Amino acid sequence: MSELSLIAAIERALSARGGRLLRGPGDDAAVVRAAGAVAVTSIDAMVEGVHFKLDTHSPADVGHKALAAALSDIAAMGARPGEAYVALGLPPGFGEERALDLVRAMEELGERTGTAIAGGDVIQAPELQLSVTVTGWADSDDALAYRDGARPGHLLGVTGELGGSGAGLLLLERGERDGPLVQRHLRPEPRLAAGVALAAAGVSAMIDVSDGVATDARHLAERSGVEIVVDLERVPLAPGLREAAEELGRDPLELAAAAGEDFELLFTAPADRRAAIEQSADLPVSWIGEAREGSGLRLLAAGGRPVELTGYEHP
Amino acid sequence: MSELSLIAAIERALSARGGRLLRGPGDDAAVVRAAGAVAVTSIDAMVEGVHFKLDTHSPADVGHKALAAALSDIAAMGARPGEAYVALGLPPGFGEERALDLVRAMEELGERTGTAIAGGDVIQAPELQLSVTVTGWADSDDALAYRDGARPGHLLGVTGELGGSGAGLLLLERGERDGPLVQRHLRPEPRLAAGVALAAAGVSAMIDVSDGVATDARHLAERSGVEIVVDLERVPLAPGLREAAEELGRDPLELAAAAGEDFELLFTAPADRRAAIEQSADLPVSWIGEAREGSGLRLLAAGGRPVELTGYEHP
Repeated sequence: MSELSLIAAIERALSARGGRLLRGPGDDAAVVRAAGAVAVTSIDAMVEGVHFKLDTHSPADVGHKALAAALSDIAAMGARPGEAYVALGLPPGFGEERALDLVRAMEELGERTGTAIAGGDVIQAPELQLSVTVTGWADSDDALAYRDGARPGHLLGVTGELGGSGAGLLLLERGERDGPLVQRHLRPEPRLAAGVALAAAGVSAMIDVSDGVATDARHLAERSGVEIVVDLERVPLAPGLREAAEELGRDPLELAAAAGEDFELLFTAPADRRAAIEQSADLPVSWIGEAREGSGLRLLAAGGRPVELTGYEHP
Repeated sequence: MSELSLIAAIERALSARGGRLLRGPGDDAAVVRAAGAVAVTSIDAMVEGVHFKLDTHSPADVGHKALAAALSDIAAMGARPGEAYVALGLPPGFGEERALDLVRAMEELGERTGTAIAGGDVIQAPELQLSVTVTGWADSDDALAYRDGARPGHLLGVTGELGGSGAGLLLLERGERDGPLVQRHLRPEPRLAAGVALAAAGVSAMIDVSDGVATDARHLAERSGVEIVVDLERVPLAPGLREAAEELGRDPLELAAAAGEDFELLFTAPADRRAAIEQSADLPVSWIGEAREGSGLRLLAAGGRPVELTGYEHP
């Protein structure tokens, strides 16, 4: 299949949605009706051998994950998802069916989240590589949540559960191909509805958990000019994480706090927003710490003992 | 230099401009005030060994060219340039200075064209790879030029001169490092002002010359449902192309029509727009053919003899 016929097949696999896409793939550029006064845009790149391996991740997993990771940044701003633009580098012999599997998985996630895959580029490359740009929309920049709004006294909250993705990757690398932890790693869900709801409910700062709360809370602390304290005992663990960690010989709290790629939302909020936030999100919210005067990150283990979780590396 | 400190250095190398960039690099996503009712977006990817070689292209050349190629798509729509988002994959040992050279060249082109580099991603990769997403803006989709508006009787025009980039690449590969043809290949200029002017002056279809007029005119023909005839004798040749082609043992018309990457604008227009178009563009316009009833592309050499220029390959 030539590059042009693959592009035509990809175009057929995509569907315009939402009525905002005035011109999709096939012209020099996509044309989209602005769906708000401000555009919120993030770009994420992934490459085979660095971010995934094709012996543990199917092309569909890779496509899903690349779009999910980009959408997660839009969720962390509290913006509504809009359009995605995908650059796809295919190695020799990758084959049209696997390329279409990858695109179809993106299209499924796009359909479920209301994201139109509006444009792309297909190139030859030495190994599989993807770059996904996602644009979301909001009515004003005041409606969004940034990283720099945490203030001393604000509570630290997180959606859902953590550690599942890190444990899932370790299980994958031991040869497991099924189960909820493996799925959690392969098919993360961007928390788009929660992001919009949390921004509207008055969070003061927000970030998505891509590197692990230990790292992502530090980003909030640095951008906001506060110290953030995380009580590890209150970090919500993914179901089955303790048992999997025991089997793997790993510390479940380390997986939950440092392995990353859970793509939950980590945020701060004034204490008086606590009830509104718990009621607004379509996911469980756990309160795991607070912001204080100072700088940097403080991780507390059982009994308030400070711990370090630096240098976590996937094996 | 760590990834985080490189990112910080890149952020310092970029400047917000235009007042529309409400949040630039450093948060989960960039926030931009919509600068028109419609957003016009294109993504372009390039990878070392496929699209460029580091022994002929400096990091600054690569950065310039990647942004220029993406902006050229915005020019071909007749949109105003807005923001760029850059994913940069750096191989081991690439070094922070070369990465910053690459970004600074993008920033220079961004400054000259009014494009803000608003966000990015930096990853490790096996070889140098870039993906650039550019968003432009327009007041309505009617203000833009598409590929599908050519009608029988419309004239075919092109801006500037062709063949310089293809000759420049051949000279580069023979070891030359200077001269206007080499520069034409290394530092193409997106025809942004011409694109806006041509769209306003009433072109019926437009595309940028990235693959060569032989291929790009075929795209116009296929999308518009017409035959396009190109009179190769009327194709404007880059200054010095004939001499360089003789030295290289190549056909100058083949370089002008099939080598590509000149990033001029190729367009059709009703004959009654001819004078308005010539007066509106900030570049010379050459009339090189016409659209007819039918399909596909017809290339005519001296005396109206049909020729084929398929399968041009850079050596």
